[in-house]
Amino acid sequence: MIRTRCLIAAICALAVATSLAHAADALPSWNDGTAKKSIVEFVAKVTTEGSPEFVPPSERIATFDNDGTLWAEQPVYFQFAFALDRVKAIAPQHPEWKDKDPFASLLKGDLKSALAGGEPAVFQILMVTHTGMTTAEFEKTVTEWIATAKHPKTRRAYTEMVYQPMLELLAYLRANGFKTFIVSGGGIEFMRPWVEKIYGIPPEQVIGSSGKVKFELRDTTPVLVKLPEVNFIDDKAGKPVGIQQHIGRRPILAFGNSDGDLQMLQWTAAGGGVRFMGIVHHTDAAREWAYDRQSHIGKLDKALDEGQAKGWIIVDMKKDWRRIFAFEKD
Amino acid sequence: MIRTRCLIAAICALAVATSLAHAADALPSWNDGTAKKSIVEFVAKVTTEGSPEFVPPSERIATFDNDGTLWAEQPVYFQFAFALDRVKAIAPQHPEWKDKDPFASLLKGDLKSALAGGEPAVFQILMVTHTGMTTAEFEKTVTEWIATAKHPKTRRAYTEMVYQPMLELLAYLRANGFKTFIVSGGGIEFMRPWVEKIYGIPPEQVIGSSGKVKFELRDTTPVLVKLPEVNFIDDKAGKPVGIQQHIGRRPILAFGNSDGDLQMLQWTAAGGGVRFMGIVHHTDAAREWAYDRQSHIGKLDKALDEGQAKGWIIVDMKKDWRRIFAFEKD
Repeated sequence: MIRTRCLIAAICALAVATSLAHAADALPSWNDGTAKKSIVEFVAKVTTEGSPEFVPPSERIATFDNDGTLWAEQPVYFQFAFALDRVKAIAPQHPEWKDKDPFASLLKGDLKSALAGGEPAVFQILMVTHTGMTTAEFEKTVTEWIATAKHPKTRRAYTEMVYQPMLELLAYLRANGFKTFIVSGGGIEFMRPWVEKIYGIPPEQVIGSSGKVKFELRDTTPVLVKLPEVNFIDDKAGKPVGIQQHIGRRPILAFGNSDGDLQMLQWTAAGGGVRFMGIVHHTDAAREWAYDRQSHIGKLDKALDEGQAKGWIIVDMKKDWRRIFAFEKD
Repeated sequence: MIRTRCLIAAICALAVATSLAHAADALPSWNDGTAKKSIVEFVAKVTTEGSPEFVPPSERIATFDNDGTLWAEQPVYFQFAFALDRVKAIAPQHPEWKDKDPFASLLKGDLKSALAGGEPAVFQILMVTHTGMTTAEFEKTVTEWIATAKHPKTRRAYTEMVYQPMLELLAYLRANGFKTFIVSGGGIEFMRPWVEKIYGIPPEQVIGSSGKVKFELRDTTPVLVKLPEVNFIDDKAGKPVGIQQHIGRRPILAFGNSDGDLQMLQWTAAGGGVRFMGIVHHTDAAREWAYDRQSHIGKLDKALDEGQAKGWIIVDMKKDWRRIFAFEKD
C-alpha cells in the first residue's frame, strides 16, 4: 500500500513539475522579452528527461545574490540601516560614544562625518552592533527590527522592498526541482531570521559573510557567542569559495547585480552543460533606482562588460519587469 | 488540474509519512530494545500533527557524526588510510622524502616511527595529500581511491564498512520529513564525493573540517585551489559552530560516538521541546571493535558519563544491532 502511494506521489510530482516547466504565466511580473524567454527555455531544457541537456534534480542548484538582486539596496544597504538604528538603540549603554567618532557624529545625525573614517569606521559600527551577544540574542534583535523598521524613501517595511519578479522566479525554479540558495556579501545571521518567510529559502540554504562564533557553557547552558572577528567575506572571489564550502556543487543558474557577483557568475558559467547567468541591471529611476558603473553601492561595471560580451542575460529592470514591488499599483 | 495533482501528491506524501512513522520494520537491523523503541517513539511524537510535541518538517534537522557513527574508524580513521595511500602514490614526485620524516619512515612501512613526530607529523601528511591541487582534482582522487581501496582487516571496500542500522535510521528519518546532515571532524571534501550515493546525504548537507580555498583564473578558466592552511576544525566545540554556520538551525536529533560529539549533543539537548541524543557505543569486538574510554581513536569517556547521567540513548552495538554490516551473513 505504501509503495502504491509512493508511486502515485512520484507520478503526481512529475506531472506537476512538467506542467510548471511550460507554464509561462508562473512569471506574471516579467514582460515578454529576451530575459523571460531565456529563463523559461533554460528551465525547459534542463528539466526535460531524455534531452541531452537534462540535469537531475539533485544538481539543479540556483544561487542568488541578495542586495540589489532579490531586494533593493538604496540609499544604503539595509543591513547598514539596521546597524545605524542599533547604534542609536544601544547608545545609552555607551556614554563614551558622546566624544568618540564614528559614534558621536552618527548620534548627531551626521552620517557624512561619521563615515569620513572610511572602512575602519564602518567596521567599528558593524562590530559594536553585530558582536558581543549570543546568536539567539542577535536573531531576536534582527527579527524585531525587520518587523518594525521602515525604508526611508518608500516608508514600507524592508521586507516589502523585495522584487516581485525575483520572488516569482525563485518559486518557479523550486517548482521545477531546483534548490534555491542565497549567496550574499551581507551577513548570514542578518538574513536567516527572515528569508525563509520572505523568499521561501530556509536558513541552511543561506550563504553570507560571517563573524567568528564561539561555543561556551554558561552554567550548564550552551550558547554561541558572536566574536568581534571576521570569519568569512562572501563577496567577489569569496562567492565561489562560499559556494564550495556550503554547497560543494557548482550552480547551474546564478543571478547577481554587481561586480561583487562576477566571480560567482564566472564559476557558474565554467561548469559543463547548459548554464544560466543573469544580472539585474538597475535602470528604473522612477520605480526603483538607476545606477551601475559609477555607483558606490552595487557597482556594476566589469560584470556588465563581461556579461554583455559572453551573452549572459542582462535584465533591464525598466523594460523587463512589469511590476517591481508587490505594493505598486497597476 | 495542476492544483488537483498537487493536492493528491500532498495527501500521498502525508499518508506515506504517517505510515512510516509507525512502521517499526523500517529498522530491521535493530533488535527490539530501548534504543529502537526510543527512536520510533521520538519520530512518532514529532511527526504527529496536533500533538504538543509536533515539529514542522522544516525544523526536523538531524545531525550525524561520521567516523564511528555512520561507518567504522578502526584501526585508523579511513581518511588517514587515504592519506597514507596518497603519500605512496605521489612519492615518486618527491625524491626529497627519502631522507625526510615522517615520509621516509612511512615509505619504509614504519608507521610507528612516522607518527613519533605526533600531531605535526600527521599535519604534514595531511597537508601534502590534501592541498596544492584544485578542488576538482582532489575530488577525482578521492573518487578513485574510495572505489578501489580495501579495509586492511575485512578486505571490503571502505564504503561497505558503513553501519546498516544507521543507513536504515537515516532513511527512516528522511521518510518522516527529516533533513539529515553529516557533522564530522573529517574533511568535508573527503566525504562529499561519495556520501550522497552511500548515505543518501547530498554534498550541501555535509559539514566537516576544511582547509582554505582560493579562487583564481587560470587563463580564463576559474578554479578553486586548496591551500595548505586550516579553515575550520569541525570537532568538539567546533561542531555547534559548524552547525550554526551551515544550517543556522538547531538539530532536534543528533548522533555521535565519541567525546568529539559531546558539544553537538549538548547543543541539541539544550533546544526547547522534545529532542533525541544518541551515542553509538562500540561494544562488539567480534563483529566490529570494542573501545571507549581508553581509545586514542573515537575516545568515549566524558560523553558516556554525561549521556548516562542525562538519559541520552546509548546504543550498545552488540545488543542493539542485529546486523552491523550489510555484508555479514545471517
